Amino acid sequence: MITTDILIIGAGPTGLFTVFEAGLLKLKCHLIDALPQPGGQCSELYPKKPIYDIPGFPEILAGDLTSNLLEQGKQFQPGFTLGERAETIETLDDGSFIVTTNKGTQHHAPIIAIAGGLGSFEPRKPQLENIDSYEDNGLAYFIKDPEVYRDKKVVIAGGGDSALDWGIFLADVASEVTLVHRRNEFRGALDSVERVQELKLLNKINIITPAEITALHGEHKIEGVAVTKDGDTQIIEADAFIPLFGLSPKLGPIGDWGLEIEKNAIKVDTVDYQTNIPGIYAIGDVNTYEGKLKLILCGFHEATLMCQSAYKRLNPGKKFVLKYTTVSGINGFDGTRKESPKAVVKAIL
Amino acid sequence: MITTDILIIGAGPTGLFTVFEAGLLKLKCHLIDALPQPGGQCSELYPKKPIYDIPGFPEILAGDLTSNLLEQGKQFQPGFTLGERAETIETLDDGSFIVTTNKGTQHHAPIIAIAGGLGSFEPRKPQLENIDSYEDNGLAYFIKDPEVYRDKKVVIAGGGDSALDWGIFLADVASEVTLVHRRNEFRGALDSVERVQELKLLNKINIITPAEITALHGEHKIEGVAVTKDGDTQIIEADAFIPLFGLSPKLGPIGDWGLEIEKNAIKVDTVDYQTNIPGIYAIGDVNTYEGKLKLILCGFHEATLMCQSAYKRLNPGKKFVLKYTTVSGINGFDGTRKESPKAVVKAIL
Ligand SMILES: Cc1cc2nc3c(=O)[nH]c(=O)nc-3n(C[C@H](O)[C@H](O)[C@H](O)COP(=O)(O)OP(=O)(O)OC[C@H]3O[C@@H](n4cnc5c(N)ncnc54)[C@H](O)[C@@H]3O)c2cc1C
Ligand SMILES: Cc1cc2nc3c(=O)[nH]c(=O)nc-3n(C[C@H](O)[C@H](O)[C@H](O)COP(=O)(O)OP(=O)(O)OC[C@H]3O[C@@H](n4cnc5c(N)ncnc54)[C@H](O)[C@@H]3O)c2cc1C
Repeated sequence: MITTDILIIGAGPTGLFTVFEAGLLKLKCHLIDALPQPGGQCSELYPKKPIYDIPGFPEILAGDLTSNLLEQGKQFQPGFTLGERAETIETLDDGSFIVTTNKGTQHHAPIIAIAGGLGSFEPRKPQLENIDSYEDNGLAYFIKDPEVYRDKKVVIAGGGDSALDWGIFLADVASEVTLVHRRNEFRGALDSVERVQELKLLNKINIITPAEITALHGEHKIEGVAVTKDGDTQIIEADAFIPLFGLSPKLGPIGDWGLEIEKNAIKVDTVDYQTNIPGIYAIGDVNTYEGKLKLILCGFHEATLMCQSAYKRLNPGKKFVLKYTTVSGINGFDGTRKESPKAVVKAIL
Repeated sequence: MITTDILIIGAGPTGLFTVFEAGLLKLKCHLIDALPQPGGQCSELYPKKPIYDIPGFPEILAGDLTSNLLEQGKQFQPGFTLGERAETIETLDDGSFIVTTNKGTQHHAPIIAIAGGLGSFEPRKPQLENIDSYEDNGLAYFIKDPEVYRDKKVVIAGGGDSALDWGIFLADVASEVTLVHRRNEFRGALDSVERVQELKLLNKINIITPAEITALHGEHKIEGVAVTKDGDTQIIEADAFIPLFGLSPKLGPIGDWGLEIEKNAIKVDTVDYQTNIPGIYAIGDVNTYEGKLKLILCGFHEATLMCQSAYKRLNPGKKFVLKYTTVSGINGFDGTRKESPKAVVKAIL
């Protein structure tokens, strides 16, 4: 059982900044995310695109914002449960909560911060017979560890940035990479498309277009995939099949936790972004209130006010004084300290 | 008469970010500030100190945050009235406002955003006979344009960063710089104190400590100042006297505009940070509501929601769709355009 002060569901920008604000108040955080990496929409949907409305950054790539937020919070040593979806919640007699993921990992905390964005990112799955039986047996919708594919025969399906980028990456790892797409045209960053074109000419990637995967073969695990092009079907030998047809966010199981839902989002009050269940907060894109804007900078503010409220809940009656980071510095849980250079008091003679 | 869409009172971080958010909605801004430079507390009180809790910046100097915010908003071409205090407000029949400064400059706008922080920064003035009659006649509490002091004899009083830094700067501009402080010890950044020590040894700055200015002399303008040390008074010839005893913020005249005031701040609701007077908003440190935190990142959120509300007020009935800057790019009022590189759609042959 993982225990923490604030259990954050969702490691998007809002969840990541919560780690920092909680840390200032000496509260520890643990994050759960269905994706294999932190960053939420920023890292999954548009890591290489610039955002222009993060205050103080005339321009910042979404991927860099994610790295910066991780760096900003790292001295507060957050824990991560990645690649798992928070599924069920149980309230204990003392008002604390146990959250269990789809893989059975249990987390215990007195405070829950749902920073689930538009929902947990779920892969779009192709409609193929018995597809679910191959999951984790050669079939994967995410690539967590590319080394798994070392010297293997890999078939990737899809025509966007993920298919292009993983095709390029695995060309150097796998023994054979085949990229199948239902159109001739790929859609992605210019340099990715050009690189795949080069790798094709070097025979390091096979491209089959316009074509579709129509069946999966193999006793217990993937051994081959059927590819249909112009009405003809061939079976390609393969150890792995990776369909990259995009992800779509689903509020999913959190929708059944007894929280007040409005417009597919969780209703909160604007004093501290608490839900109708005391001790459970909802911050960032996942919440709704009058005037709500689904913007990153709003999630930052909501996370900050929420942490103050969580602190008061955990320390009833304790008098709280807001401290400026500039004045008080930052004491990390790892023993580090950051502080502004002190002024000297010195005679001039 | 200066006219604009949103008249912002206060050019601190909150006011500066408002320019950007308003610009996204095609609304023009003009800012008034009592200080000679933008940046509010950040630039006046701690420009060289690091802030640790601006989201996405593990560390940023307050002065750099100010520059970044100016850069982020500059394509929306804000106007500035600096070194003047917003003094009175008048509501016209059409619900728009005229705001007049202490120097008589008039501004007309349908929307007022008060981003006045802890109030307009007012210099702490020494208690000297007739001191007010010398204001702008050799006596200055702020240095707007150092060239004014070229080849002049200048006396600075004070023992903190401002006194040290201006002493250093004017040593190269003025014909004579005298620094008077009531203690031997100066308090400031180590390198500033050391630099003043060097300049003293080079005879480029005169230091008189522990001493006080006890009188001002001159017919219509400053011609000399009386300095008292150990009970002895000497008169130093001077063209300029610059007391730098710090600034203290005062809510001041805005307190009499008929706005609901609580704990020396302006009460707003949290839907759009509007005050009790429709069309007048209060954002950043200057406002108060349940759960309010006087933090920079909160001002950013408040400014953003406020601009949405102002837009709806100015465009009644017009349907508004939130656009992501990443997706829509930024169209500056100066004709510039920023946008993320487009994806290509291309066949791989
Ligand atoms: C193309 C594009 C461009 C954008 N441009 C801008 C822009 O310019 N400016 C701006 O401010 N915003 C922009 N946005 C919106 C911005 O990305 C979101 O506001 C922001 O990501 C919200 O952050 P968040 O942390 O609240 O949620 P998210 O980033 O959505 O992260 C939520 C995370 O929670 C996880 N999660 C949800 N439920 C569960 C569960 N049950 N179990 C485990 N994990 C779960 C999800 O997998 C996800 O990783 C853009 C969005 C897109 C798609
Ligand atoms: C030493 C110190 C350290 C700090 N550290 C941090 C930190 O680490 N993190 C953090 O988030 N915050 C910190 N703060 C607080 C932060 O600086 C404020 O929250 C922030 O400056 C508020 O911004 P603002 O734009 O609302 O107001 P301000 O920065 O106060 O700017 C308001 C401006 O309005 C002007 N004004 C007011 N009334 C009038 C008028 N009638 N006419 C003309 N001009 C007027 C003032 O002159 C001023 O320039 C710190 C503050 C100090 C003093």
